[in-house]
Amino acid sequence: MKTTFGPQKILFPMPVSLVVTGNMGKANIVTIAWVTLLTSAPPTLGISVGTKGFSGEQIKENKHFTVNIASADKMTEADYCGIVSGREVDKFEKTGFTKLPSRHIDSPIIKECPLNIECELVSASLVGRTNHFIGRILEVHMDTDKLKDPDNPGTYLTELMNPLIYMGGAREYRKIGGKIGDAYSIGKKLKER
Amino acid sequence: MKTTFGPQKILFPMPVSLVVTGNMGKANIVTIAWVTLLTSAPPTLGISVGTKGFSGEQIKENKHFTVNIASADKMTEADYCGIVSGREVDKFEKTGFTKLPSRHIDSPIIKECPLNIECELVSASLVGRTNHFIGRILEVHMDTDKLKDPDNPGTYLTELMNPLIYMGGAREYRKIGGKIGDAYSIGKKLKER
Repeated sequence: MKTTFGPQKILFPMPVSLVVTGNMGKANIVTIAWVTLLTSAPPTLGISVGTKGFSGEQIKENKHFTVNIASADKMTEADYCGIVSGREVDKFEKTGFTKLPSRHIDSPIIKECPLNIECELVSASLVGRTNHFIGRILEVHMDTDKLKDPDNPGTYLTELMNPLIYMGGAREYRKIGGKIGDAYSIGKKLKER
Repeated sequence: MKTTFGPQKILFPMPVSLVVTGNMGKANIVTIAWVTLLTSAPPTLGISVGTKGFSGEQIKENKHFTVNIASADKMTEADYCGIVSGREVDKFEKTGFTKLPSRHIDSPIIKECPLNIECELVSASLVGRTNHFIGRILEVHMDTDKLKDPDNPGTYLTELMNPLIYMGGAREYRKIGGKIGDAYSIGKKLKER
């Protein structure tokens, strides 16, 4: 049996990304679960960012940002970056996160996040009351010690990446669970049936 | 130490959504991990759908679709829906998924998915070589037996929802792990420090 709730903003499971704006001298961090890839040609992602916050202003001004995937052991810091404003505090100072220079843009990446994506803004639009920023991916960084083969980004070890998961609606954080199958493969069983 | 890979389409963890198009008589299913909420006012989501597939055509034609979140016990069926074309097979028949009528639109929802979202297409654009469909959320359905309070969609029990997780790049499916904290709350510790 289904219960019907009308229009609601509920989706899960979601990644927890830390979006960094600004530059090495003065940078801000905002927590964004509303992030996804949009196309692979060329690699491009989208983030939804509130219109009242400091990060949206900075992205519009600087035309670049980084997306850094939070690990479960940085849950407290990641949550903190979503509940305070960069207008009032230096979130790098408060969280202890370390800025590392990006390769192509001024906004730094976060050393303590195992996956870091440098983006150049290609479009900014308003969806309802929220900014939708589309960013072309210029560079992807991953923690070297979490890769099986440093020439292949698909060989990362999920347990070492230890990604933080957000359950929208329930508003809770979860750890990743065990591997249960290979994508683009396990479904072939049904194909042959 | 970081390893740098150039522009890549890597993001994790991701939800596994089954997007249903068409109507109760003839419906199709496609697996989409590239889905996110875009705004809460009004509740709206975005999905990225290939330009060559049957689902994209149907969404453009019918202007509506449903997003159904896959549970881990339907991993094989969910993967299957991403590797075959709706032009060639009836995926409802092949997977055994059950169509339930939506409340506001012709496209059905999937009974076996614990979260179902009815969407009306509000915009279709091309990002790179991929369709980006923005859907206004008209209705959210959840399995009644997975809710603590049937008047509040935020009270669902994550273990019962048992959402399937996709790790982009590694191309593997994972189960959800244990709860580690409350969002919009655990970070306050740092705020007070």
